[in-house]
Amino acid sequence: MTSPTRTATAYETLDVSVDDDGVATLTLDRPDAMNSFTVTMARELLHFFTVDAHDDAVRAVVVTGAGRAFCAGMDLSAEGNVFGLDESVDPTPEELRAHLTDDPYQDGVRDTGGKVTLAIHALPKPVIAAINGAAVGIGATMTLAMDLRLASTTARIGFVFGRLGIVPEAASSWFLPRIVGISQALEWVYSADVLTAQQALDGRLLRSLHEPEDLLGAAQELARSFVKDRSPVALGLAKQLLYRNSAAADPLEAHLSDSLAMFHASIGDGKEGVAAFREKRAPRFTGRASDLPRVFD
Amino acid sequence: MTSPTRTATAYETLDVSVDDDGVATLTLDRPDAMNSFTVTMARELLHFFTVDAHDDAVRAVVVTGAGRAFCAGMDLSAEGNVFGLDESVDPTPEELRAHLTDDPYQDGVRDTGGKVTLAIHALPKPVIAAINGAAVGIGATMTLAMDLRLASTTARIGFVFGRLGIVPEAASSWFLPRIVGISQALEWVYSADVLTAQQALDGRLLRSLHEPEDLLGAAQELARSFVKDRSPVALGLAKQLLYRNSAAADPLEAHLSDSLAMFHASIGDGKEGVAAFREKRAPRFTGRASDLPRVFD
Amino acid sequence: MTSPTRTATAYETLDVSVDDDGVATLTLDRPDAMNSFTVTMARELLHFFTVDAHDDAVRAVVVTGAGRAFCAGMDLSAEGNVFGLDESVDPTPEELRAHLTDDPYQDGVRDTGGKVTLAIHALPKPVIAAINGAAVGIGATMTLAMDLRLASTTARIGFVFGRLGIVPEAASSWFLPRIVGISQALEWVYSADVLTAQQALDGRLLRSLHEPEDLLGAAQELARSFVKDRSPVALGLAKQLLYRNSAAADPLEAHLSDSLAMFHASIGDGKEGVAAFREKRAPRFTGRASDLPRVFD
Repeated sequence: MTSPTRTATAYETLDVSVDDDGVATLTLDRPDAMNSFTVTMARELLHFFTVDAHDDAVRAVVVTGAGRAFCAGMDLSAEGNVFGLDESVDPTPEELRAHLTDDPYQDGVRDTGGKVTLAIHALPKPVIAAINGAAVGIGATMTLAMDLRLASTTARIGFVFGRLGIVPEAASSWFLPRIVGISQALEWVYSADVLTAQQALDGRLLRSLHEPEDLLGAAQELARSFVKDRSPVALGLAKQLLYRNSAAADPLEAHLSDSLAMFHASIGDGKEGVAAFREKRAPRFTGRASDLPRVFD
Repeated sequence: MTSPTRTATAYETLDVSVDDDGVATLTLDRPDAMNSFTVTMARELLHFFTVDAHDDAVRAVVVTGAGRAFCAGMDLSAEGNVFGLDESVDPTPEELRAHLTDDPYQDGVRDTGGKVTLAIHALPKPVIAAINGAAVGIGATMTLAMDLRLASTTARIGFVFGRLGIVPEAASSWFLPRIVGISQALEWVYSADVLTAQQALDGRLLRSLHEPEDLLGAAQELARSFVKDRSPVALGLAKQLLYRNSAAADPLEAHLSDSLAMFHASIGDGKEGVAAFREKRAPRFTGRASDLPRVFD
Repeated sequence: MTSPTRTATAYETLDVSVDDDGVATLTLDRPDAMNSFTVTMARELLHFFTVDAHDDAVRAVVVTGAGRAFCAGMDLSAEGNVFGLDESVDPTPEELRAHLTDDPYQDGVRDTGGKVTLAIHALPKPVIAAINGAAVGIGATMTLAMDLRLASTTARIGFVFGRLGIVPEAASSWFLPRIVGISQALEWVYSADVLTAQQALDGRLLRSLHEPEDLLGAAQELARSFVKDRSPVALGLAKQLLYRNSAAADPLEAHLSDSLAMFHASIGDGKEGVAAFREKRAPRFTGRASDLPRVFD
């Protein structure tokens, strides 16, 4: 039906294709290592989500894993300093904030998974996780920055950090309580258990369960339904509005930003949208996600 | 049972009555146009929620629609500039914020639906939606600023903005994620589908479903149960506390404001409340919602 | 199986024991008065949660009630000024904030229940409510600052403040919407009804229901599973991250604090955790909850 094409960028650990509807499928592609997360994979994910995915030809992204696993967590088989930290520094919150744009310092302190999830979050396009198997540690937390999570009935999901003496990362403490509520988030992090797909569904982490062979198609079809005949500007602004205002102090903040989003949409793709609605035809939107109006101060 | 009386204000697009228990029923009243939202309706809703509803004789508000629909969205049949925007300006977030009290500028930029929902939100009294039929676009988002949503089994609810190339408005990006969680909010906005009443119930948008002929009575009965033998001051403060502190950075903020609310309630209607409890009789509260103590700085 | 020992502190209204796994069981112990909340109980809870519970020998806390009730609310049988307020002051929000560390003023204005819940919230260890019977008023709101709530099938829970002309306190307006969503929180507070255990479970206030005779054991077993072979530092930081960042404006805030938490955990207990994982043995963590690194500015 669609003719997948590879992106220009060649990746070692990822496979990316984009179909004719603009649905990109990003596959974590280290199947022999259960797609475990390495420094190279982090760098490549960061490149994909900050560069390739911003191409206007990409309308939505589906993320899945090659083989049996989605992502089995950080690759702990590496030698030495597994977290890549600079143990010679003794960072304070104030220093980290001050050095946020100062890479040499940051790279010894900032969490690698978080750099990736912030990039996923900043993409003004729908991102859907198709969790095909084990999603553990960073394999679980990276999906929280995606908008929706579909899973195979055989998936297993674990916020297992506590078993290693470490903490949930990748900004998951911002995302997880928003998705499942604070009590469920605390229980899963405290227990550090690996959840069955059904448990994760019951706890509202997942949107839906699918037979293994149907999962990827279902995720791609859902992504397609979000972008077909839709304005990339309206979609991108809607994503920004929902996330930002879900955390705003007051509905007035939402009113200010959605007024501007409505203003710009209305004098842009909204004109075509209303015209098409009146003329009972499909709209032909011309706005581009790479050129969103600024609606937040 | 109750003898409904009209309010003093005469409305073109609304019908309002208040029963003996102080439960106001506001009916969107353009049944031939599926109660679609016009500039006149916006102005009248704003007047009702900022003036009439603040009368101490009104203790709670139930909102419903006349005829088959609740509100079928913005009236797109109007000629010309359907959103009423001033296309000659190029507003920035900073400018909009600076001009927030400057009406000529605002009216060309600020979202009309948002003015209405901010007014609903600011009313320190329970507001209940009785969604009797189609609630689409602003017809859906206006209900999000109401505290609870009851619906007829025949209701249909749609955050359909994306189909028109526009975005969810009326401060809905603040309310919707608080009500249904961020993932469900994203999915409904991305899909832009019209939901069945059952889907909306399953997604936790609605409190309960009712047979069409039972809906309005159920909503009024619920409103009555909230205000009968209750202090309007305690109710108003509780509404302010729950919304404001649901978005506060820290429980200390809640502690500061609820301490003050408790202080003022305790030396006011709380004395009568405790006395009545001890004497096993109904309380006779004298506090007024129009005279709430200030508990937020 | 475990040999409970009393804590050094002697309490009038509480019974406290700590088992060999570090699970403290705190029992509200005024069974003849349905464990109703008095000034003495408030002072003792504050002492327990700010002093005793911070002992590194305590790894988690389970809170339950002696006899049939959990806590039947504030003891309204006391004579005179039941809320202990200084009615001679007329506090503003600004004054209360300014006097936050000035006890003589505060004690006449600050809500007593809130002092207790802020102390529960600040403890960097899992706290679990085992709601064995009636939990009403402060008996209900104090459980909201605990991480999870298990209940007996015979429990009854009521946010009944409205019936007394007062408001939900103890910072409950911060906690309750985060646990059950804003609409459910508003309904329960407006209705002021006493809920059955099943209603509270359906509304997502409770994690699980248990037969009365099984409740305390289940809560203790859950607490044990959270702390056995776990780093107290990782647990404490995880609790802080989830609560703080659930209310943060932006995932960047979570990224800054979780980066620091990961940094410190990784060069601390995380090394042992990874080593034990590689060596397929139980970890021997040495970090202490009383010495958490600072990760928030």
